[in-house]
Amino acid sequence: MNIEDKKIFSDKWFSYLQEQICNSFEKIEIESRSQKKFISTDWYKKSKGRGGGTYKILKNGKIFDKVGVNKSTVSGIFSKKFRHNIPGAQKDGKYWASGISVVAHMKNPKIPAIHFNTRFIVTSKNWFGGGIDVTPSFKDKKEEKIFHSSLKKVCKENNKNYRKYKIWCDKYFFLPHRNEPRGIGGIFFDYENKNWEKDFKFVRDVGINFLVISKNIIKRKINLKYKGKDKEKQLLKRGRYIEFNLLYDRGTKFGLNSGGNTEAILMSLPPNAKW
Amino acid sequence: MNIEDKKIFSDKWFSYLQEQICNSFEKIEIESRSQKKFISTDWYKKSKGRGGGTYKILKNGKIFDKVGVNKSTVSGIFSKKFRHNIPGAQKDGKYWASGISVVAHMKNPKIPAIHFNTRFIVTSKNWFGGGIDVTPSFKDKKEEKIFHSSLKKVCKENNKNYRKYKIWCDKYFFLPHRNEPRGIGGIFFDYENKNWEKDFKFVRDVGINFLVISKNIIKRKINLKYKGKDKEKQLLKRGRYIEFNLLYDRGTKFGLNSGGNTEAILMSLPPNAKW
Repeated sequence: MNIEDKKIFSDKWFSYLQEQICNSFEKIEIESRSQKKFISTDWYKKSKGRGGGTYKILKNGKIFDKVGVNKSTVSGIFSKKFRHNIPGAQKDGKYWASGISVVAHMKNPKIPAIHFNTRFIVTSKNWFGGGIDVTPSFKDKKEEKIFHSSLKKVCKENNKNYRKYKIWCDKYFFLPHRNEPRGIGGIFFDYENKNWEKDFKFVRDVGINFLVISKNIIKRKINLKYKGKDKEKQLLKRGRYIEFNLLYDRGTKFGLNSGGNTEAILMSLPPNAKW
Repeated sequence: MNIEDKKIFSDKWFSYLQEQICNSFEKIEIESRSQKKFISTDWYKKSKGRGGGTYKILKNGKIFDKVGVNKSTVSGIFSKKFRHNIPGAQKDGKYWASGISVVAHMKNPKIPAIHFNTRFIVTSKNWFGGGIDVTPSFKDKKEEKIFHSSLKKVCKENNKNYRKYKIWCDKYFFLPHRNEPRGIGGIFFDYENKNWEKDFKFVRDVGINFLVISKNIIKRKINLKYKGKDKEKQLLKRGRYIEFNLLYDRGTKFGLNSGGNTEAILMSLPPNAKW
């Protein structure tokens, strides 16, 4: 398959997946007798290249305090300062990138925040990246087991090195200034470019796994009661989440450096937080 | 005066000023029939050099939602990655730094957040830096005039270039990803090293001006009524404040890169915010 076809296939997949995730989450809201729907916004790059995206946000639901599902496809030239960090971009800085990212902040503090992202990047090289991780405010060993083993299964079925991705995730979602992890990890992978068809299948399977596991995680605890002090604990945890995303997150830096849409990039921030 | 004496003089001044500011703010609380006092925490650098500091925080007051007054004096060696940005540190990375910073987040959303900082830095060079700026959630032309003219006066009395510092402040406290300023500016100066005695006097005068102007700004509006939607507006403004501090602020980066105390560095964050 030539690179232009690869771009089209991955771009279309991410759009398809965005629809499925929004449908799945809206269904959860409807089942909880909520009328809340995703509000969809299209945006186009104004400078520094081409492309754009669609971000869909559902706020103040019965289940979701705020959930954003963002899909974008952009291209352009990286600034000289930024390009030396990107494989295959050193020479001319050219890039094309398509991806989907999801961050769900739950109303019920007993249900963890969930983050998912997959992307296909093209410079003079090309590769997939992505991952899933969850950030609970309360320890739940059973949930951890269900979550991690679902990821292990997806990796195994695709002959991917689960252990490597798990360690990468723990290392990535870590706040050095707090000496604490953001959440309980999951998987994180990048620079996947051994066999395009197989890597693309893996990326699709990770996306489908997110659809299934996010629903499971939410439904397990959808009826759990909580108190004001539980919500307080979640708001403090969200403060840490914000610190990580603004101080360290590569996706945030990539977005702001590639002329992305600010609302779409900072969609990941929770609706409120405390320190 | 030799450099060791300069270090002692500036360090002692910042400690003295910290006391005065805390006393002034506690008095404002007491006058509003609040029992809230500053809680003081000493910390010591555990790695990457010597020194430490004292941060004082007053939370949940009748006037202040949260105000932090942080004084620290640290020394060590900058990492190779960080030192190329610091004048006089390129060769061996050695530094000594003392300073005071204050961030006040007000309960009444009609009163702006106020930020103040002064510092003395020693590498193979030495210089003063600092500034004052305010971040209102509501436009108030009269307040702007009082505030800016007080700074103009201090600069004039010390033969300092007010216009340069004002522009520097506007440029510094700007969120490019939002294309909006953090607040209404004030003054920002750095690398002041023409005449140590005169520069030190200027730094002291800026500190005293902060004492006076912060009290004036607060007292002008202390009895103003506000509604829930006014508080909402302030919480959204605080979200922008957090974005600036974590994405761009040099002081935050300096602190985290010089082994500073995380609680002291992130004392600048508001107690809560919304997006």
